[in-house]
Amino acid sequence: MDGSRGRFLLVAAIGLVAGVVLGVVIGYFSRQPGSAAPWAEELVRDGDASAGRRVQEEILPENIEENLRRLTSVPHIAGREMDLGQAEDLRDRWLQYGLDSARLTPYDILLSYPSSDENSPSRVTLMEADGTVVIQSQVEEAPLDQWQDDPNIVPPFNAYSGSGDVEGELVYVNYGRVEDFFHLQRDLNIDPSGKICIARYGSIFRGDKAEKAEQFGCLGLIIYSDPADYSARDYPVYPDGWMLPPSGVQRGTLMIAQGDPLTPFYPANEYAYRLTEEEAKVVAGLPGIPVHPIGFGVGIELLRHLAGDEAPEDWRGDLNITYRTGPGFQQAHAGRRVRLQVNVQNEVKRTYNVIGIIEGSVEPDRYVIMGNHRDAWVFGSVDPSSGTAVQEEVARAFGKLKQEGWRPRRSLVFASWGAEEYGLIGSTEWVEEYSKVLQERAVAYLNVDIAALGNYTFRSSASPAMFQSVFEATKKVPDPGVNPAGSSYSSLYDSWAAKVPKDEGDPNSLPNIGQLGSGSDYTPFFQHLGISSIDFRFICDPAVLDYYALYHSSYETFDLVKNFIDPEFKVHQAVGRVLAEMALDLADSLVLPIDPTVYSTALQDIAESVRTEYSTQFDAQSISMEYLDSAVSNFTRSALRLKDRMSNIDKKNPLAVRVVNDQLMQLERGFIDPLGLPGREWYRHVVYAPSAHNSYAGQAFPGLADAMFDIENAANQTQRWEEVKKQLAIITYTVQSAATAIEEGGL
Amino acid sequence: MDGSRGRFLLVAAIGLVAGVVLGVVIGYFSRQPGSAAPWAEELVRDGDASAGRRVQEEILPENIEENLRRLTSVPHIAGREMDLGQAEDLRDRWLQYGLDSARLTPYDILLSYPSSDENSPSRVTLMEADGTVVIQSQVEEAPLDQWQDDPNIVPPFNAYSGSGDVEGELVYVNYGRVEDFFHLQRDLNIDPSGKICIARYGSIFRGDKAEKAEQFGCLGLIIYSDPADYSARDYPVYPDGWMLPPSGVQRGTLMIAQGDPLTPFYPANEYAYRLTEEEAKVVAGLPGIPVHPIGFGVGIELLRHLAGDEAPEDWRGDLNITYRTGPGFQQAHAGRRVRLQVNVQNEVKRTYNVIGIIEGSVEPDRYVIMGNHRDAWVFGSVDPSSGTAVQEEVARAFGKLKQEGWRPRRSLVFASWGAEEYGLIGSTEWVEEYSKVLQERAVAYLNVDIAALGNYTFRSSASPAMFQSVFEATKKVPDPGVNPAGSSYSSLYDSWAAKVPKDEGDPNSLPNIGQLGSGSDYTPFFQHLGISSIDFRFICDPAVLDYYALYHSSYETFDLVKNFIDPEFKVHQAVGRVLAEMALDLADSLVLPIDPTVYSTALQDIAESVRTEYSTQFDAQSISMEYLDSAVSNFTRSALRLKDRMSNIDKKNPLAVRVVNDQLMQLERGFIDPLGLPGREWYRHVVYAPSAHNSYAGQAFPGLADAMFDIENAANQTQRWEEVKKQLAIITYTVQSAATAIEEGGL
Repeated sequence: MDGSRGRFLLVAAIGLVAGVVLGVVIGYFSRQPGSAAPWAEELVRDGDASAGRRVQEEILPENIEENLRRLTSVPHIAGREMDLGQAEDLRDRWLQYGLDSARLTPYDILLSYPSSDENSPSRVTLMEADGTVVIQSQVEEAPLDQWQDDPNIVPPFNAYSGSGDVEGELVYVNYGRVEDFFHLQRDLNIDPSGKICIARYGSIFRGDKAEKAEQFGCLGLIIYSDPADYSARDYPVYPDGWMLPPSGVQRGTLMIAQGDPLTPFYPANEYAYRLTEEEAKVVAGLPGIPVHPIGFGVGIELLRHLAGDEAPEDWRGDLNITYRTGPGFQQAHAGRRVRLQVNVQNEVKRTYNVIGIIEGSVEPDRYVIMGNHRDAWVFGSVDPSSGTAVQEEVARAFGKLKQEGWRPRRSLVFASWGAEEYGLIGSTEWVEEYSKVLQERAVAYLNVDIAALGNYTFRSSASPAMFQSVFEATKKVPDPGVNPAGSSYSSLYDSWAAKVPKDEGDPNSLPNIGQLGSGSDYTPFFQHLGISSIDFRFICDPAVLDYYALYHSSYETFDLVKNFIDPEFKVHQAVGRVLAEMALDLADSLVLPIDPTVYSTALQDIAESVRTEYSTQFDAQSISMEYLDSAVSNFTRSALRLKDRMSNIDKKNPLAVRVVNDQLMQLERGFIDPLGLPGREWYRHVVYAPSAHNSYAGQAFPGLADAMFDIENAANQTQRWEEVKKQLAIITYTVQSAATAIEEGGL
Repeated sequence: MDGSRGRFLLVAAIGLVAGVVLGVVIGYFSRQPGSAAPWAEELVRDGDASAGRRVQEEILPENIEENLRRLTSVPHIAGREMDLGQAEDLRDRWLQYGLDSARLTPYDILLSYPSSDENSPSRVTLMEADGTVVIQSQVEEAPLDQWQDDPNIVPPFNAYSGSGDVEGELVYVNYGRVEDFFHLQRDLNIDPSGKICIARYGSIFRGDKAEKAEQFGCLGLIIYSDPADYSARDYPVYPDGWMLPPSGVQRGTLMIAQGDPLTPFYPANEYAYRLTEEEAKVVAGLPGIPVHPIGFGVGIELLRHLAGDEAPEDWRGDLNITYRTGPGFQQAHAGRRVRLQVNVQNEVKRTYNVIGIIEGSVEPDRYVIMGNHRDAWVFGSVDPSSGTAVQEEVARAFGKLKQEGWRPRRSLVFASWGAEEYGLIGSTEWVEEYSKVLQERAVAYLNVDIAALGNYTFRSSASPAMFQSVFEATKKVPDPGVNPAGSSYSSLYDSWAAKVPKDEGDPNSLPNIGQLGSGSDYTPFFQHLGISSIDFRFICDPAVLDYYALYHSSYETFDLVKNFIDPEFKVHQAVGRVLAEMALDLADSLVLPIDPTVYSTALQDIAESVRTEYSTQFDAQSISMEYLDSAVSNFTRSALRLKDRMSNIDKKNPLAVRVVNDQLMQLERGFIDPLGLPGREWYRHVVYAPSAHNSYAGQAFPGLADAMFDIENAANQTQRWEEVKKQLAIITYTVQSAATAIEEGGL
């Protein structure tokens, strides 16, 4: 049997050896390179696909409602007690919710309040010749609800108004836009200089109205709310509906610049160098004339007996009077006088931001920032606390996921800003303080100031770099279902595209996304630093009203929202879900969800509209657009190449992914000119800036638009046309630079 | 036998299966995670240790000599034929050497030449009262060698001088520094206003002399070379030695600003908006008065019979005369007149840079840039062709390695600049064109303008961020061995540390590295964009001369270098080896070789010297340095933490390495203020700028230094002290920002 056993052993051994050889080969090549190194997989994992659904489910309407009730229970104006009070509360809640950190960032800034001297109220008085008061504006709005007896309600006023006590002839200036003043002067031969001008709120930012009034020599400015702009027939006024009652007044800032007026370009910290208030007035462009807001209950009496011709048709509002321009009053009331008293005190006060962070697990040095401001003029149930309530719930939802073991790839930053109402001050000071870090590391800024001022449709303004992500996010969010009878939509995207189409009449149209101006806290990120940004909210039906009627009045209360805007808070929930999905998309996708060709399309569209608007004038001056067109073409090609690299990228190579993502971040930054716009150097984005005539509106190629503005009437034509040529060259260079910045080779 | 075979098969099968199982286990776990993925290893490999030795060996003195011979065979001033000629030749050679790409980048810029009208020469004439010429400067330097009959030698002149034909009394103003003018005015009661001033070359940049002369009201300025500054007793003059003969003249620009005067801040390309020459003169600060350079052969006659008291001791040069100040001439020669005629034409000409690239294999989007300018006033054997010759050989050496299969991790960029002599124009225009890309991707800029103006010692000026790398590089380069008899050094580092110690008397002292001013092409990188930079060269013994005597004369020939500076070209070779080793260190090390704590030490030293210099005055004004000290402390801590992270980094994680490297790149950029320095906005580095009184010298905390300059004599004390406080706040903020920019958390 020995030979046999020997042969068995031999056969077994051969089998074993053969097996081992085979096995080693199998085992070696079956192992994925890198797959055994958990960190390597982690570096290149794409986002957790379930996170979106989970976070959406976690965002609850009842919590948002509770948040809003709490936030709107007290007035919370910047610089006063509840600035700190609500900041600390928010910080504590964010920490409870599970954020890695949350802290306050204080800044000492120049704010503005009605004088504390009760004997010096700010008010508008209409008097008979003998001084008998016909009507006078009040320091309080009428007590139409349970909230109005709060002693912390700030009287209606315009922040940073000049103080003064003036009397003069009244002139009606429509919306107080530059075209209105031109029309008065050039067409109607009425000189507003030395008059008290009365303008209606609407159309443009009130700070521009004050600036224009002062530029055109007005003694003072009264701004009233006309029912044409703040009410609608067949809709009840507050407290029975959401329209503006006669005593409602819109508060608001007059400052056109952003940030603390005493510390332009630098953060308002302990060692900052501060201008004097006098210097600041010049540098920040604060009004020198008195300006005061009133409701239409007083407004109607001021306008009722104006002298002069009937105002042009598009100057007429909805008051039951004949609108005339003035100056002064009709014969029968010729002795009447208007007195404007404004006592506004500017003082340095402390405001707080709250910054909360969930750190990214793979690229913690990349930030997706979700911002909202916290300060309100009074109760702020729409502006901004609807947004604050939503942001808080989104933070709680993400915190929940984090506590369940989830982390995003990149860091999520929650920012609650102070003193936005005064001029984006909290966000601006913070951005100025952290400019180097943000310039280097911030991926995007997502702003929800107001979450819902109506329930009609979702609406957004954004950098083209954000279009893809917001489209994708809204596709994932169910429509909240607050729609006109007979229509229903599956996703928020569907209702948005149907209600705000880019191409009217095209059933497959993308939604239209507006250009960013400077109405909210995205401005320091976007126009100062060149970080891609977006703002979104739900709005009311523009067929009814352009904006919500009770804006910045003391009637902006919890009741307004609960009764008339979003009783079930499903609209708020939808906004929160969009915010969460977008943040997730940007923070968790391996390759940033940015389509560079959307930007080149936007540039092409802008160049086209420049051509349409100016080509006749350009031709007359032998100014060619060939180089600009060439730069836009180059940018388009660079964008296509980048998009191509994105598709072909080796997704297992974390460095290659990082390099492409770095270039996607450069997309927006490429449009920053460190020199800034002429006369407005803090705005440095060459493609988009706030319009010089309406801070709310976004103006494309602003350097050119400003140089071309009213050029036919410019005193020195040669100088102005030189400026046009210079701005065209700068834009061309910047677009070309932006193209090079996203090139693989670069040099 | 069936049963038996069946059992054999069974045993074999069992053996096989067991073997496979065993083999799979062995095979699987024997595979290194990531080791089988070649790209993964590649992502985290450190530099090839042999590359340094190989590239050093490849850099050959005889090639450098050949390069220099070729380059200096013809004059090659910017904007004329050899600008393009030598650019094309260089590009072709770089491509031959194996660079991945090499291309020309043209810019159309405002240059300046002596008038082509032969009847309008620029000259200085000393005449008797009746017009008899006593002595007159020549349009050519004396024909002391074979090179001087070249028709393309540009006559001695100062670029961008004002043109004019003036006569006036002569006043001697020493070096024409602001302290010299102050001394004249305040101590000697001599008013230079309306006089022709004569200054000697040296001490400060000639553009500052012209600026001061114009500020103090001089009619015109003559600049001559005094033997005290450009010769030394016991040393023969050219052609028998390297000292300046009487007919030698120093050409040079007067422009203080950098870049094309017609296109400040933007590249001078086809569509650039250009200022008029008149506008440019104001914006770029070009002199309005006539300025002309002469040799001491003429200078001695102008100074010989000046009237007035003997000049102060430190105003006396080495001419065999009694130095007096003037104004005017002594009694015996009182009728003599000085006439200054300058005819200089500014014209737009084309200049070329050459950009050559060896692309990095792992991070091609990171650039290490080696620059030299190519243009010379005449033959430029020292300035700049000694550097050009070295750079070309370094490119050839790297090209050789590349052709042998090597690639650096990051990209190596070779840059040959045009029109540097006029005002760093080629480099500035290129930096302005590629600012976005460079800001984002450039790791460092290594400048070799002049490789060797002497053979005494290595010398460098640099950002503190470059100290570690240049120390390491010089330790790897053998000392070229051209030393005073009796001493010999192993490495270049050893001789450098011995000859230029930071701490005199300490045998273990580090070498002293100077602060960067704006004497060469690093300025746009360093002071405009905040990219860490270095400049180095070999110099002559400062005990003999501060600078080389034949600077910018037509005697700067191949013979000068071959006969008197570096006959065997071993000094040039050493400089090339330093360049190559530094570039390799920066381009190939996994973690960038930057020690952030060296920067914090530098900041501490600067803060200390500020305290020493100003504390008495600050105390008198109740200005505290506490916040600045605090910011410097914070920066120091942030630097320590970064250094700590660098040591603890997981070197197998390419993303972690990239993140730390990104932060190291932010180190320098953190010191950039986008607003720039007051009145000199193109300089944006807050820690280092060219001195406002001598562009060659680096001034630390320039904003403060400028605000404090001569403050005791400022007209408006209050306003000046406010400016001091403002600048202190800006510096504090910037240092704090720089600290935050290198923090892991950031926000």
